[in-house]
Amino acid sequence: MVSKEITEILEAVVGPDNIAFDTAALTAYAYDATRLKGKPDVVVRPGSEEEVSKIMLLATRYGVPVVPRGAGSGLSGGAVPSMGGIVLSFERMARIISIDTGTRTAAVQPGVVTGVFQKAVEDVGLFYPPDPGSLAYCTLGGNVAENAGGMRALKYGVTRDYVIGLRAVLPSGEVIRTGVRTAKGVVGYDITRLLVGSEGTLAVITEITLKLVPKPEKVFTMTAFFRDSADAGRAVAAVMASPYTPRCMEFLDSEALKAGAVHSGFNLPDTAGGFLLIETDGSETEAKRQIEAISGLVGQYAINTRMAADEAEAQSLWKLRRSTSQALFTLAPDKVNEDTVVPVDKVSDALAGFGEISAKYGLKIVCFGHAGDGNIHVNIMTDKKDPVKKAKAGEAVADVFRLVLSLGGTISGEHGVGLTKAPYLGMELSECEIALLKKIKKTFDPADILNPGKIFCLE
Amino acid sequence: MVSKEITEILEAVVGPDNIAFDTAALTAYAYDATRLKGKPDVVVRPGSEEEVSKIMLLATRYGVPVVPRGAGSGLSGGAVPSMGGIVLSFERMARIISIDTGTRTAAVQPGVVTGVFQKAVEDVGLFYPPDPGSLAYCTLGGNVAENAGGMRALKYGVTRDYVIGLRAVLPSGEVIRTGVRTAKGVVGYDITRLLVGSEGTLAVITEITLKLVPKPEKVFTMTAFFRDSADAGRAVAAVMASPYTPRCMEFLDSEALKAGAVHSGFNLPDTAGGFLLIETDGSETEAKRQIEAISGLVGQYAINTRMAADEAEAQSLWKLRRSTSQALFTLAPDKVNEDTVVPVDKVSDALAGFGEISAKYGLKIVCFGHAGDGNIHVNIMTDKKDPVKKAKAGEAVADVFRLVLSLGGTISGEHGVGLTKAPYLGMELSECEIALLKKIKKTFDPADILNPGKIFCLE
Repeated sequence: MVSKEITEILEAVVGPDNIAFDTAALTAYAYDATRLKGKPDVVVRPGSEEEVSKIMLLATRYGVPVVPRGAGSGLSGGAVPSMGGIVLSFERMARIISIDTGTRTAAVQPGVVTGVFQKAVEDVGLFYPPDPGSLAYCTLGGNVAENAGGMRALKYGVTRDYVIGLRAVLPSGEVIRTGVRTAKGVVGYDITRLLVGSEGTLAVITEITLKLVPKPEKVFTMTAFFRDSADAGRAVAAVMASPYTPRCMEFLDSEALKAGAVHSGFNLPDTAGGFLLIETDGSETEAKRQIEAISGLVGQYAINTRMAADEAEAQSLWKLRRSTSQALFTLAPDKVNEDTVVPVDKVSDALAGFGEISAKYGLKIVCFGHAGDGNIHVNIMTDKKDPVKKAKAGEAVADVFRLVLSLGGTISGEHGVGLTKAPYLGMELSECEIALLKKIKKTFDPADILNPGKIFCLE
Repeated sequence: MVSKEITEILEAVVGPDNIAFDTAALTAYAYDATRLKGKPDVVVRPGSEEEVSKIMLLATRYGVPVVPRGAGSGLSGGAVPSMGGIVLSFERMARIISIDTGTRTAAVQPGVVTGVFQKAVEDVGLFYPPDPGSLAYCTLGGNVAENAGGMRALKYGVTRDYVIGLRAVLPSGEVIRTGVRTAKGVVGYDITRLLVGSEGTLAVITEITLKLVPKPEKVFTMTAFFRDSADAGRAVAAVMASPYTPRCMEFLDSEALKAGAVHSGFNLPDTAGGFLLIETDGSETEAKRQIEAISGLVGQYAINTRMAADEAEAQSLWKLRRSTSQALFTLAPDKVNEDTVVPVDKVSDALAGFGEISAKYGLKIVCFGHAGDGNIHVNIMTDKKDPVKKAKAGEAVADVFRLVLSLGGTISGEHGVGLTKAPYLGMELSECEIALLKKIKKTFDPADILNPGKIFCLE
């Protein structure tokens, strides 16, 4: 509970226009994209690192939970104020500080929207590859906190691979500078990558230095339709065992494909039971050579393949891919979306296994995702109002996790642990490993005020 | 001091053939490539993770320092047993466990020699890019501990960018598994990257999972000679501001060039006062297109540029580059080699500044390195037997560090802090940042037995 005394100090720090505790504000900042709901006591919008520092010092002194928040687009509850307290929203710290073509780097405040930044970078001939599905509204601070992935991770890697330095405020209010502003640096432990993906539990990020790459000249887009998921999985494995690396290789299973096609008005081949959307990029010659070679490999397993004739056709294919997630709500009132990864040569095995779990519990399981990374979003369709179906979905989730772990995979590829996966942490990590993570948490945040209850279940 | 009781237990763990405390062995394991000398009490060569675990448990219980050691090729004293104790040498744990073309990953024990691994990987059509100068004898375990860089970091990144998972033994003897064996994973804090570059101070690495990439079809090599270093620096900046990314762009200044040419029997152009060795790779078309474009850019600043006609010519150019480090000993009895990085558009400024420092102290300063990363190895030529020159070299080092930090750089790009840079840590990091690193050290190693005195000066 945040007392009147504390809110008065907070108001003095950020000014009366940047603090809110009316019901509308508290409701608006209670959710993230999981639809989980918390109950914040107060929403504060700092305008500077100095203000963040004062807020953290105060929160530590009074033992008040602080939940840093970008756009609330996260998929594991990371920004949900589940313990109440202060929501620290970064919408006012949303400035692109610099984009430097000479060093191929940029510096940004955490509230910058990812898509806005990508465009600004491309305008000067550079490229910021990470592209989470929510890039139109998610923020770079949130991307760093969750180590967001996306479609192009296959060739370019994830957010972590582009963060070279940070400024951050510790729970004590102290400001640290991590990493470098150069191409290399090995002075001291890698606090930069420790903070990337730490889900707002170790420190509050106030500035991000990002590495950029030259903008690829040309992108080629193709699709392949398959009889079933297993064949699509085989095609993925064949590409990854070849010398070619597409920049993305997106997969939809039969149900995802049908729902997405209806939703986006796409005309499907009759026998289509699996789908890949593949892109290559680079110089025109090189990107073309790669897409043609990949098309040949994939063609061996597909019922048809097609190269997008132009940008408009490519966009309609992406519309089909991107509409899937929302379209699934036509299949059932609720879905439990799990973000699993398996080794890329085990995608077919994983999909077959998910099919068995679906049959076992009598629940539809719909799969799509970043197949080239082995990153499959597994959607267990359920109805949370039906206690039987809800319980079955819970059991199915545990089965899904057991399967991916048995195949050498992980229970979260890019969404984080947050609230939703915290109960399952012990399936992937040993007691000793969890104890080590908790000790690191305590080192940074002895009072446990920074995003408490995330990653680790409360004891 | 390691007691008779402890050596008896150690002998029981690893067997009598794998423990040594004769003078010859203790001398052989006392050094690394800095020529700094420690005094180990015992050398132990474990054969398995289980043996490492038993040794660590014992060392923690008795408070004995443990210094993990690959090939002793490090350049900051990381493997020097400066506090005595146990040298834990990994020559028996040198197995390539798997190279998997289906998932583009490999698993290795820490004692595998980097060059041996590179060759094995290339034999199956894959590629492990990191290539520290010592790759013919350095080990992957050492590379991971120091986050080794190398020539090809410009395009491909450093060791950290290829380590996706580890097995490691904590000082307590407990075994942890970190990261993933897949393309993505975000479960818990990134302990993998925290251990990469931790210089053997947090845990003992027992197995490494590495990401691989397809082997590039073709490499093109070119050289450019410049009137002086400043022009070479300008050429580097021009390339990095272009849409092209060479896989390496190596620099030699006038002194390095002359010494290297004598040492390797290379015939220099008369007016040459600066040198770049540039490579591109990829498909034949693409690599050729890039080297031609780069040659055009570089040509604007060079007195001549030349494409290597064949592999033999490329090798003779590499011989010139690689012989530099040794050749410098013809200029002075000793050198202090510092591994600085500046933003890539500040290379010319840095080189000019090093020239001023050289004049100020009357000591030759010779520079070479990975110019495309802004990573300049600064060699302050001195004579350690001459107390005046020795003191001046020490002051020059501090000036060099002040300069690179003022340009937005770092005092170590790829060699680590170890013993040699520990006294300068406070020039780059704040008190608060150093305190945080020490707390992390204490979290992993409360008894301070793992490589004590490295990174942080002893208090």
